[in-house]
Amino acid sequence: MNKSFWSPGLEKLEPYTPGEQANSKNLVKLNTNENPYPASPEALSLLAQGDFADALRRYPDPESCELRAAIAERYDLNDNQIFVGNGSDEVLALSFYSFFRRSDPLLFPDITYSFYPVYCQLFDIEPRTIPLRADFTLAVEDFAGNAGGIIIPNPNAPTGRYLPLDQIEELLRLQSEQVVIIDEAYIDFGGESATRLIDQHPNLLVIHTLSKSYALAGLRLGFAMGQKHLIEGLLRAKNSFNSYPIDAIAQQVATAAIRDSAWHADNCGKVIATRQRSEEALQELGFQVVSSKANFILAKPPEPGAETLYLALRERNILVRYFNKPRISEYLRISIGTDDEMDQLIRNCKEILASQS
Amino acid sequence: MNKSFWSPGLEKLEPYTPGEQANSKNLVKLNTNENPYPASPEALSLLAQGDFADALRRYPDPESCELRAAIAERYDLNDNQIFVGNGSDEVLALSFYSFFRRSDPLLFPDITYSFYPVYCQLFDIEPRTIPLRADFTLAVEDFAGNAGGIIIPNPNAPTGRYLPLDQIEELLRLQSEQVVIIDEAYIDFGGESATRLIDQHPNLLVIHTLSKSYALAGLRLGFAMGQKHLIEGLLRAKNSFNSYPIDAIAQQVATAAIRDSAWHADNCGKVIATRQRSEEALQELGFQVVSSKANFILAKPPEPGAETLYLALRERNILVRYFNKPRISEYLRISIGTDDEMDQLIRNCKEILASQS
Repeated sequence: MNKSFWSPGLEKLEPYTPGEQANSKNLVKLNTNENPYPASPEALSLLAQGDFADALRRYPDPESCELRAAIAERYDLNDNQIFVGNGSDEVLALSFYSFFRRSDPLLFPDITYSFYPVYCQLFDIEPRTIPLRADFTLAVEDFAGNAGGIIIPNPNAPTGRYLPLDQIEELLRLQSEQVVIIDEAYIDFGGESATRLIDQHPNLLVIHTLSKSYALAGLRLGFAMGQKHLIEGLLRAKNSFNSYPIDAIAQQVATAAIRDSAWHADNCGKVIATRQRSEEALQELGFQVVSSKANFILAKPPEPGAETLYLALRERNILVRYFNKPRISEYLRISIGTDDEMDQLIRNCKEILASQS
Repeated sequence: MNKSFWSPGLEKLEPYTPGEQANSKNLVKLNTNENPYPASPEALSLLAQGDFADALRRYPDPESCELRAAIAERYDLNDNQIFVGNGSDEVLALSFYSFFRRSDPLLFPDITYSFYPVYCQLFDIEPRTIPLRADFTLAVEDFAGNAGGIIIPNPNAPTGRYLPLDQIEELLRLQSEQVVIIDEAYIDFGGESATRLIDQHPNLLVIHTLSKSYALAGLRLGFAMGQKHLIEGLLRAKNSFNSYPIDAIAQQVATAAIRDSAWHADNCGKVIATRQRSEEALQELGFQVVSSKANFILAKPPEPGAETLYLALRERNILVRYFNKPRISEYLRISIGTDDEMDQLIRNCKEILASQS
């Protein structure tokens, strides 16, 4: 490979590795935290009904005004407190650029979304990882001290652990001079959003996605919410990178999805109920289950252990996520599927564990 | 505005200003180089026919394999010589990051796509602008000397001037140690693509978009073509920024559009014919017209001049682009619309010029 044309430093980047997007139709796919149910029919039916020739011929609204208004209404915020991007990954990348390129290091938990250290490399930000406690809980006081910013997912990924709002507020006060990003990709599955703290905390940015609780991972839509001065910072970076990140179809589909709050509440309720059933079933099989408020479960299987079980499930066309990383290499992360998919998982785990004992 | 939370340098960015996306339905919109005709029916009919529930529920193919294969086939290249992004603006941004962050300055023409200097600010790249000749032609020898890279649009924007392939090849040899990007957003309206030089030139990256000749500005799809080592560099940056930039719908629609080469040839032919008619009509009104191979015309109107005419057209619901910038402040950039739209433009120009004389 001829790397002589690359910018210095490009070779040192270690890109994010997404969960496998397998093609087989017969897979039980519980490895990328997708929603097991189809998205809001209000959103999906737009595609069949709409006449998109003119919308596609023209550049889309660069400011996604209608979509931002729908989000603002949903969270009782102003339109100028909303920033939308091409998936929450893009929103995160632009946030790292806009707020975290500082002389002090960026703090985040040692077990967390593995894209964070990648953004740090991309934008030359010094990361400092703060160890979670042994039970994967986060202690706010561990995040004191010099910092150029803080980012935590809540619930955390891949642990599923949830930090209550009073502790988020403590963190916002502890680091009141730094931007604190709460990455709420999984908040709708039982947690309470920090959005209601926005008006009191000028350093709070909350990031959401339509990929999980809205069943629209394929649409690529994420958004950030915070006081206007933070949103203005993001807009400045975005308009220096890509003026039109949200295509015309995605703007319409996302707007309809956000407005269909009845579908959303129902969907989250179903996922939560299946999670509770699945936690109990896994515990019965001898798994140690980390208490989750997300649409996945981190669980430590009994002997022969996580990696062997992961591979054996894969043989049986069931995909879960295995991270060969410190502290979590004995765990599997299992996305919540339909009840039927979870039954298949449980049944196969039972068989594999029985055959190995 | 509280900027204390912004990363240092963010305040100094001067973001790109896109052409106005006006909402009124009665506008003759000739200001953002959109295609006046609806996109390929093969592409558009997908939306009405498709069942996208499952495609949207899951993450899209992060590598856009099918789309890349269609592009490779269209240009007689290998799949690993194709990189796709969320509009050519994203492709450009990632290219600047991947190849141009060097100690020597990046060279580009003094009159060109105004996003280039913005990317330079974003990624701390030193720009050096090379003056075009008085008639807006580009002389390859002016691009000799120390450089960390070269980027030129061909045809150039907003001049419409086209550089023949033998001169592109001269430039590739002149700066054979630097990446040379040929931004071919407008190449399909009468120019010859540099893609056929890719196999001989390891420093050549060619960038295309579906926003112009494919009538899909609203879809946000651009792509880069070059030897594998350049594409690998782009992938490394992309996978450190956003793993899934192309949504599931856009992948399918773009693939169908690329494959419909008959529609594409027909569409480009119509735009070219209208451009020729329009050039002649403008010249008859006393405009000085710069020879164009793009889907727009840069032209210098007679008295009372460009800005006055721009404002008077705007009053009459006809939008063209006026740049209040050195060297081109006496010109208007007029996108090629339908024959009917161009007739309206010409008729209104005639009336305005008559009333002012």
